[in-house]
Amino acid sequence: MCRWMAWHGQPVLVEELLFKPEHGLIDQSLHSRMGAETTNGDGFGLGWYGTGEGPGVYRSIEPAWGDANLRHLAGHIESPLFLAHVRATSGTAIQETNCHPYDHGRWLFVHNGLINEFHELRRELMLAVDPALFADIQGSTDSELLFYLALTNGLEEDPLAALERTIGFVEAMADRHGIEHAVQASIGVSDGERLWAVRYSTEGRSRTLFASADAHALKQLHPENPRLQRLRDDDRLVVSEPFADLPGAWHEIPEATALTVLPGGTHELRPFRPLAG
Amino acid sequence: MCRWMAWHGQPVLVEELLFKPEHGLIDQSLHSRMGAETTNGDGFGLGWYGTGEGPGVYRSIEPAWGDANLRHLAGHIESPLFLAHVRATSGTAIQETNCHPYDHGRWLFVHNGLINEFHELRRELMLAVDPALFADIQGSTDSELLFYLALTNGLEEDPLAALERTIGFVEAMADRHGIEHAVQASIGVSDGERLWAVRYSTEGRSRTLFASADAHALKQLHPENPRLQRLRDDDRLVVSEPFADLPGAWHEIPEATALTVLPGGTHELRPFRPLAG
Amino acid sequence: MCRWMAWHGQPVLVEELLFKPEHGLIDQSLHSRMGAETTNGDGFGLGWYGTGEGPGVYRSIEPAWGDANLRHLAGHIESPLFLAHVRATSGTAIQETNCHPYDHGRWLFVHNGLINEFHELRRELMLAVDPALFADIQGSTDSELLFYLALTNGLEEDPLAALERTIGFVEAMADRHGIEHAVQASIGVSDGERLWAVRYSTEGRSRTLFASADAHALKQLHPENPRLQRLRDDDRLVVSEPFADLPGAWHEIPEATALTVLPGGTHELRPFRPLAG
Amino acid sequence: MCRWMAWHGQPVLVEELLFKPEHGLIDQSLHSRMGAETTNGDGFGLGWYGTGEGPGVYRSIEPAWGDANLRHLAGHIESPLFLAHVRATSGTAIQETNCHPYDHGRWLFVHNGLINEFHELRRELMLAVDPALFADIQGSTDSELLFYLALTNGLEEDPLAALERTIGFVEAMADRHGIEHAVQASIGVSDGERLWAVRYSTEGRSRTLFASADAHALKQLHPENPRLQRLRDDDRLVVSEPFADLPGAWHEIPEATALTVLPGGTHELRPFRPLAG
Repeated sequence: MCRWMAWHGQPVLVEELLFKPEHGLIDQSLHSRMGAETTNGDGFGLGWYGTGEGPGVYRSIEPAWGDANLRHLAGHIESPLFLAHVRATSGTAIQETNCHPYDHGRWLFVHNGLINEFHELRRELMLAVDPALFADIQGSTDSELLFYLALTNGLEEDPLAALERTIGFVEAMADRHGIEHAVQASIGVSDGERLWAVRYSTEGRSRTLFASADAHALKQLHPENPRLQRLRDDDRLVVSEPFADLPGAWHEIPEATALTVLPGGTHELRPFRPLAG
Repeated sequence: MCRWMAWHGQPVLVEELLFKPEHGLIDQSLHSRMGAETTNGDGFGLGWYGTGEGPGVYRSIEPAWGDANLRHLAGHIESPLFLAHVRATSGTAIQETNCHPYDHGRWLFVHNGLINEFHELRRELMLAVDPALFADIQGSTDSELLFYLALTNGLEEDPLAALERTIGFVEAMADRHGIEHAVQASIGVSDGERLWAVRYSTEGRSRTLFASADAHALKQLHPENPRLQRLRDDDRLVVSEPFADLPGAWHEIPEATALTVLPGGTHELRPFRPLAG
Repeated sequence: MCRWMAWHGQPVLVEELLFKPEHGLIDQSLHSRMGAETTNGDGFGLGWYGTGEGPGVYRSIEPAWGDANLRHLAGHIESPLFLAHVRATSGTAIQETNCHPYDHGRWLFVHNGLINEFHELRRELMLAVDPALFADIQGSTDSELLFYLALTNGLEEDPLAALERTIGFVEAMADRHGIEHAVQASIGVSDGERLWAVRYSTEGRSRTLFASADAHALKQLHPENPRLQRLRDDDRLVVSEPFADLPGAWHEIPEATALTVLPGGTHELRPFRPLAG
Repeated sequence: MCRWMAWHGQPVLVEELLFKPEHGLIDQSLHSRMGAETTNGDGFGLGWYGTGEGPGVYRSIEPAWGDANLRHLAGHIESPLFLAHVRATSGTAIQETNCHPYDHGRWLFVHNGLINEFHELRRELMLAVDPALFADIQGSTDSELLFYLALTNGLEEDPLAALERTIGFVEAMADRHGIEHAVQASIGVSDGERLWAVRYSTEGRSRTLFASADAHALKQLHPENPRLQRLRDDDRLVVSEPFADLPGAWHEIPEATALTVLPGGTHELRPFRPLAG
């Protein structure tokens, strides 16, 4: 059910990380190894910061592996911060407005996971969205709704606190409806300067999430790999599942944990604890 | 802003009415003469009754004039009752879930027009949808919401009364928000046996709507037209704007009026009067 | 690299065979077990005979598993003879004109396999197409070209002989270019009355192909299966790989063999021997 | 039948010229005033030079006016040289491989017009393509074939001479077939440094084509227009029909004439005279 990746570091051509790594995200769209589904072919999206105001976004309902435009764009867009996502729908329609990343102002949001029994909770969750934001909801996914609830809960001021409030709110509502395992999530968020990544699920068995190790250690480990030799200390990659050509390069983000990456590459992990309403 | 047609009568190949008439609906998708927009190229849909349970539906976001599949389907689907719609968006996304006809159980629904200042009213209108129906809303249009409000208001028991309640409700809400000209509408509805068509707008200047005249009169008027000579007394066609090859064949449906067509071709006009909530 | 199925028998709703069987073609589009590729998500097509002149065709570049229109059409189109195909491209563009079945007049054609080193042979093969047919070639696949070469070689008079000449011609040309394993193919062809299925490859290791067993034997084998109990003696199903819910129901079509199914269900196997030029 | 534009000058966000001008290309996709067709909704394409190797290309079969991705890309891609095209098909399939600009190596090519009776000439024209290039032809349009014939005739060495040879060749072939008015064309070509624009038709009544006037004159003419005040002497815009907000800004390129724009903005007109084969 979806795979994603995020880059925060030196400006690179998107294709360097999207297409060229062995078992990169495009390969994962066909052959995911750690995902709930092998195939992530129900659309995809790329959101990037660079030239122009706010993030650029390209979304399509075709499988990422076969999209000729994505290949062209990835080879001609350079960015110091981008997120990409390949989708496997859990039931909602296959349409561009249901493809990640979702954007709002300067913000991008990707999600791998689900709200359990979403069909039953959808209405009540929508009512909790700030009325001033409500009419901007364009698609029909649980993921987009999580984004709008997080915006309602202050994402733009304190992203992690807003996500903790949002997920706590969903868990409390699910609880009232007798629904177990309310939220399953790995989430990526950015405002164009910072990057946040969260791994959390109500049942404590979350989708996988990994961050790249220090460039220095990686270069020593793989002196023969030119891609790694170009890495700088402030480069950071976050992925649903590791690229195959970087063994030893990944730290698994623990359960119920949030990663923050700041400009300059400073990064820190801290516990992620949903707050009930 | 959209054009549509509906057929109720003897079983015909869809192409007979969709593609073959001069200035038929496909031509209107490129060159509408009476619509608010000349071009209706933001997707289309065909809903028909025939083989299989409930209505079949084919929707696409490509312009109707160029869709190779539509041409094929129209040449191979026969139906005694179908509705077709070409769309010109008033701002909501171009995606299949925003294409008419909308379907629910045995029901089909098409709409030409709009809810004024929909962005402002959307949330409140959605709250008025029956919670048991809410999660089935798939798209983001004002038209689909009108359909779900009508279902909430008893469309399946008394379609015209439900539409009068629905439009009255929207007008009352718009009034509270200081919004003028709340609803602009020509609407087609069917349950597979009967067909209803409504022409109404708050400002009293509604989109055009026409019904075909009696077969008998038409045959006398155009003894040379083979298409007309095949018409039977119980055949009825409703269109946003007349097909060019049937001069004299059309009765304009008056302002604030509803047409009902019953099995056997019985039909009647009656006033359409929205009821405030 | 592609999976297909064909039905020749009593009129059925397409969904009965396309969606309802366990591990049917739609499931094979996601999880093929015997194909060269697990995923067949690069478009699909359905061609059927029934109402209207010649075959109806619906093709799309979206994966078959997620296409809302296909689900609707399959539930509302009834046919005594249809072919369906899910595609995994071997390199040519993902576009409707590259989706099977290809149609010409009353004829439908599906192919699973490839012409080896097609890029090198394409021009010479195209030159061999009847100039009167040439301009009707719409796509860019090796499969469509096989179809047009077979039409050139008399497909409409004697399909199996035409296919033997066509494949023999391709093999001879590949030989001149020093290309091994020229053709890999399972092919389905119909004119709306008869159905032909061929299993052949130059190297003698062809893609799998199966035909359903006699209805009588099947009913005795699975008295509990209502789908099978509805089978009639003249019903025949041909598939790239067996549906899971019909164990014992399938006869593998041997290497280098052609199956012919005639109206009334008469069927026969005979060797398939390409004829050099 | 198609509209296009090309920019050669200072780096600009694509949206500045594609979306912001009154009656710019996107508006022309809906409401062309000078084209053979009012609507150009059968797909579009954007090709640009900038970051990355060779040109980037984005093509889609949806109408340009409604494509959310195009709007995003235009707002986030900056380029000193780009071509955009909106398509109205003269019969060939609506698919991405039929959308302009076509690309080959560093080269981009757009065309407005047609080869008359293309269906009859297609095979013979394809045979004239360099066999080494043949297999790269991906679509089925007359325009792509003109591009490949021009490549065959030396486009990469001397573009205008190659186009003269190509069109002369087509005219001679049409003549042999008794086909009048062989070629109708406005053509844009670039290698990423230079831009060529040709206006020519066999019958001497070519599609319109305009180039922008000197920046200096324009600034004096419209001191109140901030877009114009940003223009530099070396900026040059070529368009099928003028943008409405720049009256006096355009020079019509005469019949049978070719424009060359060099780096630095040097530009010159010269006669365009097809050479018979």
